[in-house]
Amino acid sequence: MEESKLELEYVKELLEQRKYAELRDMLKDQNPIDVAQLLGEVPDEKLLLLYRMLPKEDAAEVFSEMEHDEQETLIRAFNDREIREVIEEMYVDDAVDMLEEMPAVVVNKILRHADVETRKEINELLKYPEDSAGSVMTTEYMSLKSDMTVADAFERIRRTADEKEDIYTCYVISPSRKLEGTVTLKEMFLTSKDTIIGDIMETNIISANTLDDQEKVAKDMAKYNLTTIPIVDQENRLVGIVTVDDAIDVIQEENTEDIEMMAAITPTDKPYISTGFFETYKKRIPWLLILMISATFTGAIITKYESALGKYVILTAYIPMLMDTGGNAGSQASVSIIRGISLDEIQFSDIFRIQGKEFLVALLCGATLAVANFAKLLFIDKVSVVIAAVVCATLLLTVIVAKFVGCSLPILAKKVGFDPAVMASPFITTIVDAISLFIYFQFASHILGI
Amino acid sequence: MEESKLELEYVKELLEQRKYAELRDMLKDQNPIDVAQLLGEVPDEKLLLLYRMLPKEDAAEVFSEMEHDEQETLIRAFNDREIREVIEEMYVDDAVDMLEEMPAVVVNKILRHADVETRKEINELLKYPEDSAGSVMTTEYMSLKSDMTVADAFERIRRTADEKEDIYTCYVISPSRKLEGTVTLKEMFLTSKDTIIGDIMETNIISANTLDDQEKVAKDMAKYNLTTIPIVDQENRLVGIVTVDDAIDVIQEENTEDIEMMAAITPTDKPYISTGFFETYKKRIPWLLILMISATFTGAIITKYESALGKYVILTAYIPMLMDTGGNAGSQASVSIIRGISLDEIQFSDIFRIQGKEFLVALLCGATLAVANFAKLLFIDKVSVVIAAVVCATLLLTVIVAKFVGCSLPILAKKVGFDPAVMASPFITTIVDAISLFIYFQFASHILGI
Repeated sequence: MEESKLELEYVKELLEQRKYAELRDMLKDQNPIDVAQLLGEVPDEKLLLLYRMLPKEDAAEVFSEMEHDEQETLIRAFNDREIREVIEEMYVDDAVDMLEEMPAVVVNKILRHADVETRKEINELLKYPEDSAGSVMTTEYMSLKSDMTVADAFERIRRTADEKEDIYTCYVISPSRKLEGTVTLKEMFLTSKDTIIGDIMETNIISANTLDDQEKVAKDMAKYNLTTIPIVDQENRLVGIVTVDDAIDVIQEENTEDIEMMAAITPTDKPYISTGFFETYKKRIPWLLILMISATFTGAIITKYESALGKYVILTAYIPMLMDTGGNAGSQASVSIIRGISLDEIQFSDIFRIQGKEFLVALLCGATLAVANFAKLLFIDKVSVVIAAVVCATLLLTVIVAKFVGCSLPILAKKVGFDPAVMASPFITTIVDAISLFIYFQFASHILGI
Repeated sequence: MEESKLELEYVKELLEQRKYAELRDMLKDQNPIDVAQLLGEVPDEKLLLLYRMLPKEDAAEVFSEMEHDEQETLIRAFNDREIREVIEEMYVDDAVDMLEEMPAVVVNKILRHADVETRKEINELLKYPEDSAGSVMTTEYMSLKSDMTVADAFERIRRTADEKEDIYTCYVISPSRKLEGTVTLKEMFLTSKDTIIGDIMETNIISANTLDDQEKVAKDMAKYNLTTIPIVDQENRLVGIVTVDDAIDVIQEENTEDIEMMAAITPTDKPYISTGFFETYKKRIPWLLILMISATFTGAIITKYESALGKYVILTAYIPMLMDTGGNAGSQASVSIIRGISLDEIQFSDIFRIQGKEFLVALLCGATLAVANFAKLLFIDKVSVVIAAVVCATLLLTVIVAKFVGCSLPILAKKVGFDPAVMASPFITTIVDAISLFIYFQFASHILGI
């Protein structure tokens, strides 16, 4: 990171001093992805100037790795030839990704310059719903016929590889484009040239449907160690492939989404740093409002015991500790379960086993905390044994309830079709707060007789 | 998932009825990864029996995809020939992964049966520190010389591909094994057979060092869309490659680690579901204790204002709402920042920009919440305007402080070398609780004159 900052300063310096030959030289030796990142940091008005200094063979790749904001700036400034070059050189899935984020006027400007074939492919892909396998796939895969020999296949690959995003797993299709098998280039290398593809192809294929959730597709690729996965339509006709680099992006997006939901934020695709403050506000305020209103119930419990609290104000001092510990104990359980569900390690049928385990963990945690706290109450706070007993009994019971609620709610949420990630810290904390206060006052009124 | 459950029942049924021919038939048509998962669910005493029914060509692959517990059970039961077959068929990196988790007696049993070459490679890899690039790499890459022609390269690939984990990106090395360049099989396909490798190889190489953190390596692979990355030693000699399937595993592990730390759990590599209750207890209790002790300060603030609270017990009713809202507002900010840092989107130099944005977001959130709450206090709770003013002023200020603390601490933690994920909800909540109560009583004592 520090390196690219340094480069940026250097590039700005060269720009200012109009040392264009040097700049061109420097840009030539860089990885296109680093160049794309660098272009993201120069001022908009210098973007086109710098872009035009790129070696022609790198320009389209740099372009397709840039953020959508900068792509839009460039497209608005491009001449016709530049638009044509970029759209024809980009992989179709990258082009579709970009078009999905552009205003209609820019989309039209681009499509007007694409050739008929490209335009048709792009329009097909634009039809798939957001977050579906169809929306992240590319149509640039390598297809073979089962009656070809390996030599035929090699010849076909040699002729068409240039426009394919992946050629290492080839897809064998029937005349009606039904997916019949897969064969890797490695397998073809390891056999003789006159072997018939149909004889060596793998027919037990992991595939996905165009309408499958992209998250499921990415997880399957991770599970089965695939670098590409075939995407078929309802009639099992091959329509595209998803490549592993896109699968990794999907995995990271889904992780971000889970983490945001766990922190009571409405998830979006946009990175934090490039999201405006008003948009950030809109993602956060609904949850804060809902949780604030939920916390009202906790307040109502206190109000109910107002007169008792008037007599034993010392009880108030331990409310924050009880609430925080309950909340933390509950989130530990809920977050462990949410992650387990997200990694497909936990099923609904595990619920009793999990509750049993969490009960044991809670008993141990609760007892440890209660003992530590009892000592502190007696020797440091010097409260009466009765008060200490009320606080510590509440603590133990709160931890047990918190872990029980924390581990159960995400599994139940998943069962009824909600996203388990909602059942994380903020939600659990609100529930556990109310329960722990209720327990507290129950103990207090019975033991202290108020 | 449901499918594999069904299969399991069916397999158990066939086992019970000793229908071994049918079982063998069923196992033959399955994906090795599904079989490995299934074997993880059958009772240990049936494991060897089922394993021996696998088609010989699948057995080693199924074995290397199994969980370490089951691998150990099998190895203890294997005869000499079975051990030899498995260890020679497994990819070296998978073998090392497995050996790292086995007790010494099992490791010795395995190494005794490996051939000299394999044993040497395994021992080399076992030397690298945990979580380093060296510990996840494989030595089974395809190397070429720069003076070879494409035809020579094809010939070499054909001869040696069988024992390589990846052949699609080939690594060009000097006689002293220094990494000189990379060339993909696709590039070789697209050029004539008498082209010299040195003329088409890419010399601007993204590589990693054996001692680099595996997380950095995985992130670089994701960033540069690589399916393999070369790993070099201090003298730039090629010693191995990391493949993208392992990089995805690393990414998922690191995500789990971040999420666990955010929920105040000491992270481990082991899935929740296979972790015993005592181990789970040990991962959770230290943080609960630390956070409980921290919450003591919050209690101390209440104790200090005990007499005031005695006069205005109604103030107590709003403590949970203020604490929860502050905690939630703070975690929204901290978790957004922690994720941004983890995705390399946020640097230390962004701190002022972020604080400025969070201040605006906090102002909007705080004002919205305060207005909503003011109305509720007056019209539903029917408290006096003065009490409502104290509560809502505290609310606004708490949200501002919470977001400020929440966004700043993770960045500062990163700067001084701590893991930013520690600065998530539980920690922020504890700090914000104390601050919000302090603000509350300050307002109360000034406005209510207590």
